[in-house]
Amino acid sequence: MHSKNEGVLLIIGGNEDKAGDCTILKKFVELAGERKARIAILTTATELPEEVGREYQTIFNQLGAEQVDIIHIADRLQASEKQIGHSFAEYTGIFFTGGDQLRLTSILGGSTVNQEIVAGFKRGAVIAGTSAGASVMSQIMIVGGDSSETPKKSSISLAQGMGLLECVVIDQHFAQRGRINRLLAIVAQNPNVLGIGIDEDTALLVKGNKCSVIGSQTVTIVDGRAILHSNISESSRFEALAITNVKLHILPYGFGFDLCTRIPYEKDR
Amino acid sequence: MHSKNEGVLLIIGGNEDKAGDCTILKKFVELAGERKARIAILTTATELPEEVGREYQTIFNQLGAEQVDIIHIADRLQASEKQIGHSFAEYTGIFFTGGDQLRLTSILGGSTVNQEIVAGFKRGAVIAGTSAGASVMSQIMIVGGDSSETPKKSSISLAQGMGLLECVVIDQHFAQRGRINRLLAIVAQNPNVLGIGIDEDTALLVKGNKCSVIGSQTVTIVDGRAILHSNISESSRFEALAITNVKLHILPYGFGFDLCTRIPYEKDR
Repeated sequence: MHSKNEGVLLIIGGNEDKAGDCTILKKFVELAGERKARIAILTTATELPEEVGREYQTIFNQLGAEQVDIIHIADRLQASEKQIGHSFAEYTGIFFTGGDQLRLTSILGGSTVNQEIVAGFKRGAVIAGTSAGASVMSQIMIVGGDSSETPKKSSISLAQGMGLLECVVIDQHFAQRGRINRLLAIVAQNPNVLGIGIDEDTALLVKGNKCSVIGSQTVTIVDGRAILHSNISESSRFEALAITNVKLHILPYGFGFDLCTRIPYEKDR
Repeated sequence: MHSKNEGVLLIIGGNEDKAGDCTILKKFVELAGERKARIAILTTATELPEEVGREYQTIFNQLGAEQVDIIHIADRLQASEKQIGHSFAEYTGIFFTGGDQLRLTSILGGSTVNQEIVAGFKRGAVIAGTSAGASVMSQIMIVGGDSSETPKKSSISLAQGMGLLECVVIDQHFAQRGRINRLLAIVAQNPNVLGIGIDEDTALLVKGNKCSVIGSQTVTIVDGRAILHSNISESSRFEALAITNVKLHILPYGFGFDLCTRIPYEKDR
């Protein structure tokens, strides 16, 4: 079991469609209970919380959810207060906007709000996040790093994420920002970690060990378990890495992936 | 046997060091015979033939080669003339500058010059090319294609290359321009083709089936032979591709690769 419990994660690679079919956001509302959904939008990651929060609120309302709260938590004091004007217990869907993943973890990490989110997930709520909000889902989180470079140690910058998903590392805006090399370098550090790169307007839906891809682009899976050579321990920070025998899967809509067996499969569309 | 004969190919990912150690260009001069080298610089790919040609001429002279000719062939008439003022038979090293690979093939393809280059290669000359000059080496050649995108058919644009290397496709400026997805799409079309992505200031030295990496960055090998799923035949031009079970190797200086067995190995440095 990679995800710790019965909740569902909807991990979005950023820049999801908000004007057309809204495939991904519609799926979020559906999973949260449609008309009966009780949705919280967490705007902590962004520096435009009012604007971004209201945009998602409008969309979720249009997609049929009646109760959609925007929750602005801008500092640790707010995150740690017992009363933030909302009880998280009631939410069936929690949505993290994009922005800066380090804002999310540095403000929410270890707080009451963080605990309530994890508790909500354990109760079966759907937790969705886009862009920075996607990165925080895993135990280890990519903070930054040069993407258009040969893999090397200097392209790795990690922090602890929210830990809703174990043994994976998530990258977003993946193909669009050419981020495979930083993901390869992270996987080479410990091939037990599965690399998941999610393209824009694409999401990975995770329930237990089963994942499925939705949206218009693809999810790249970097499986390093079979790596034979890796010089990452002895290489210097700026030296080019050697990594051999990485297994790669490119999965569009209609494909699933088992986090436990690490095997992709085609689903009934 | 992938390469057809006894010549050596030095396939450079572009932007090779010209001011410092000149590792790659020095290797070219060494392979061509050092002081006894007879080098031809073919400037057909570039639109700045005088400038680019003279820059390489100066460097090759500084690196110890005495006879370095710049050969400007700007159209098919020149390429097909029996006499272009030079007999290719004497050259021990032929260097293709960067520029546009379609200029190279559309001007040289099927010409006398082309035949003389292949003949030179068969006699044992070293054929080097950087950037566009690298792309033309293989039988199928990448002409263009969007690189910062999810793999899809529309990201593939191919033409026939000079064919000095069979069953591979070469991409250059690889990590720097985030080109893995277009290479994956090409390999998915026919997994018998081995994808070789060469970073800037990096080169693959090929002799028979044996390759070695030199330079400061890495060579990415995309081996699709084990691909299980691929929807490339039924997908539409702009649909995201599914490709599973691709094997990937990232090889820096000190690593070798066997084109026949498709196995990477560490060399004595």
